[in-house]
Amino acid sequence: MTDALKIGIAGLGTVGAALFGAITTRHNLLTDICGREIRIIAVSARDRSRDRGINLDGIAWFDDPVTMARDADIDVYVELIGGDGDPAHAAVATALERGRHVVTANKALLAKHGVALAGLAEDNGVLLNFEAAVAGGIPVIKAMRESLTGNSIQRIYGILNGTCNYILTRMQRDNMGFAECLAEAQRLGYAEADPAFDIEGNDTAHKLAILTSLAFGTQIAGDEVYIEGITNISIDDIHAADELGYRIKLLGVALRTATGIEQRVHPTMVPKGSMIAQVEGVTNAVTIEADILGELMLSGPGAGGDATASAVLGDIADIAKSRPGHQHAPALGRPVAKLEPYQRAQIQSHEGGYFISLKVDDRAGVFASIATRMAENNISLESIVQRARPGGAEAGPQTVILVTHATTESRVRAAVDGIKAEGYLTGEPQVIRIERTNGS
Amino acid sequence: MTDALKIGIAGLGTVGAALFGAITTRHNLLTDICGREIRIIAVSARDRSRDRGINLDGIAWFDDPVTMARDADIDVYVELIGGDGDPAHAAVATALERGRHVVTANKALLAKHGVALAGLAEDNGVLLNFEAAVAGGIPVIKAMRESLTGNSIQRIYGILNGTCNYILTRMQRDNMGFAECLAEAQRLGYAEADPAFDIEGNDTAHKLAILTSLAFGTQIAGDEVYIEGITNISIDDIHAADELGYRIKLLGVALRTATGIEQRVHPTMVPKGSMIAQVEGVTNAVTIEADILGELMLSGPGAGGDATASAVLGDIADIAKSRPGHQHAPALGRPVAKLEPYQRAQIQSHEGGYFISLKVDDRAGVFASIATRMAENNISLESIVQRARPGGAEAGPQTVILVTHATTESRVRAAVDGIKAEGYLTGEPQVIRIERTNGS
Repeated sequence: MTDALKIGIAGLGTVGAALFGAITTRHNLLTDICGREIRIIAVSARDRSRDRGINLDGIAWFDDPVTMARDADIDVYVELIGGDGDPAHAAVATALERGRHVVTANKALLAKHGVALAGLAEDNGVLLNFEAAVAGGIPVIKAMRESLTGNSIQRIYGILNGTCNYILTRMQRDNMGFAECLAEAQRLGYAEADPAFDIEGNDTAHKLAILTSLAFGTQIAGDEVYIEGITNISIDDIHAADELGYRIKLLGVALRTATGIEQRVHPTMVPKGSMIAQVEGVTNAVTIEADILGELMLSGPGAGGDATASAVLGDIADIAKSRPGHQHAPALGRPVAKLEPYQRAQIQSHEGGYFISLKVDDRAGVFASIATRMAENNISLESIVQRARPGGAEAGPQTVILVTHATTESRVRAAVDGIKAEGYLTGEPQVIRIERTNGS
Repeated sequence: MTDALKIGIAGLGTVGAALFGAITTRHNLLTDICGREIRIIAVSARDRSRDRGINLDGIAWFDDPVTMARDADIDVYVELIGGDGDPAHAAVATALERGRHVVTANKALLAKHGVALAGLAEDNGVLLNFEAAVAGGIPVIKAMRESLTGNSIQRIYGILNGTCNYILTRMQRDNMGFAECLAEAQRLGYAEADPAFDIEGNDTAHKLAILTSLAFGTQIAGDEVYIEGITNISIDDIHAADELGYRIKLLGVALRTATGIEQRVHPTMVPKGSMIAQVEGVTNAVTIEADILGELMLSGPGAGGDATASAVLGDIADIAKSRPGHQHAPALGRPVAKLEPYQRAQIQSHEGGYFISLKVDDRAGVFASIATRMAENNISLESIVQRARPGGAEAGPQTVILVTHATTESRVRAAVDGIKAEGYLTGEPQVIRIERTNGS
């Protein structure tokens, strides 16, 4: 039997501890499956004295993860530190330069440095695996990188952030406001104390940028994602969506268009009857539209120590099964030299349906004016809903909701700007893009 | 660059022609991704003169697929012949014995001979890949064999036959009878002229047996599947299910229990709000419950030339990327010697909820008798629905529907037999198992 595969784990938080436990308790099973032993021989974390419920006897301890990457006698460096800067970046680069395979769950690092790191892996003949970096335990990286080989992708979209989906699900299901749901998510450990990175859409954008590269064979462009978070989604929007047959989800969408590739993260209306609308709570889901295969959807746990550890373990097992130096497995699906530049499609040219909610001061001519602005911009309407005034009052401010047929972002913005300029809006207009989905 | 990977394709039906087209039209892309050329050098089919819309110039033709397996100078033998007997069996065995990798879409062959063929692949140091054999284009084999490494599986279930799901979807959505939907499926090419193999559940059973082996590390037991098809599902059952909040799907379910592993294929009630209930038409879906990862669901096209070709191409690409003799990749996830015997759990000990529909001749004591039989067998009821008689008549035959709490198959059968013995049923009782699903 081949020699044991020697592992070093940098970062012993929830994921690291779960991974450590899984590898040690399933030692014999893993040996059977992989044809060789998987053995953890080194770890690195900040606080050596902390009780993590795992037995570190006989395992080399490194205070500095970069030193471990350089000096430990390991075959695989597992990076669970996080963040796009050092020490994670230096540690991964050092490990690759030293000819060690790397498994990482670090989406921020890959969104920023993924192409350079993939190049380092190629130059050194080692593997860079990162299944856990996108959609947690869902094997979407493997699907894109391996199963869909040869397919041309038209669109990939998904629910990539469990925090946001939990909040939107609770708002819809339990008729709760945004702030209340966020507090609940924090109480349950689904949201960070500082939730901005999740709820502003940045986490989704990092994951989307990685998927875009795999889908379209382009360089990773993590800075060129159009981003809107969910902080201005109100319970009224959720209700209005429901009445019109939609759910609101924070989607990351990458789409090939005639002018380039759209990368968008924003609250999105999806038909209630679509599969992605049924994805609730912290669950993630990704849909891939491929020209040979058709439409593939994967859903499952997008975060959490165990689910992430499972993805990391799958990546380690792939390395254990392969024989170093005898496999062609470029990290981004094709050699770095073959990646094309990312050509951005501007959000202004986005085409699709729109949900527009306008709070208006009811007076003569309001409807005519709205209709005129839409017509001037060549926007045709699928429906107009005037919500009843509270308490059945016959006058006062009210909400008008428009659902457009397919049009462009620039037309919608021009129309809404025109309506705003008329001066009878009593609040900021809400504009939510509608995404065409499976079965709709 | 490594030498070209030389391919021989046996079987040039819809899938073979689609595969041929994909490999030839995407030649350069595949070379970039795989790091070597993928080149078709031999084909075998029954009728050389048939126009398949593909150019076979310069490609060796074999009338006999076994001869091609023996004599062609190929690295990979792609078996798209079908059937569990010869020539498919002899061809695959010969190719493996000759040290050629095999890619096959043949579920019947694997359900019957999978363990022996996996052993042949091991003995000869070659790969046996079969992503297309289960759920068409959905990468469930890869997920089980690679992504979920180290996970213990509790249950795997899915919609594995597009024909049945198409029929059940049309019945529900368009209020059509079984025979009418079957005829429509045949007209559209979703069902064979002889549909028995699909609608009786045998096709699902083959696929389930393969998944069971991968999920539980057991030998394939294609003959030990409890099977009920969909032929006795009536539009009344569909309506009753709908009223009670369920959809009826033909599921294949493999479940680890205290007494062994259940393998069941039968019409199943799943809650309307569950994701699997949204899987419509010819789409397939598989849900895997894994102890580290959690619950993973994959859905997509389960059949069709292109989707199947996509899965075959992914398998070929995996071989192209690996370097022969330098990869440990047992076909069934672990070496054949490590597979455990399949221990069957009897259907009589199945535990779950049941939907029971009884056509009764309305007379005094009927309800009391039904309730007594249920109570005698320790079955507690979640709901009882008495459907209104047609036209509001006050007497005559009527339907009583019971939904039980979790109980066992043997109790339900004893109760229903007891009710039948009373003599007031006017038709065969309908018993449909309820499957616990995600979100229910």
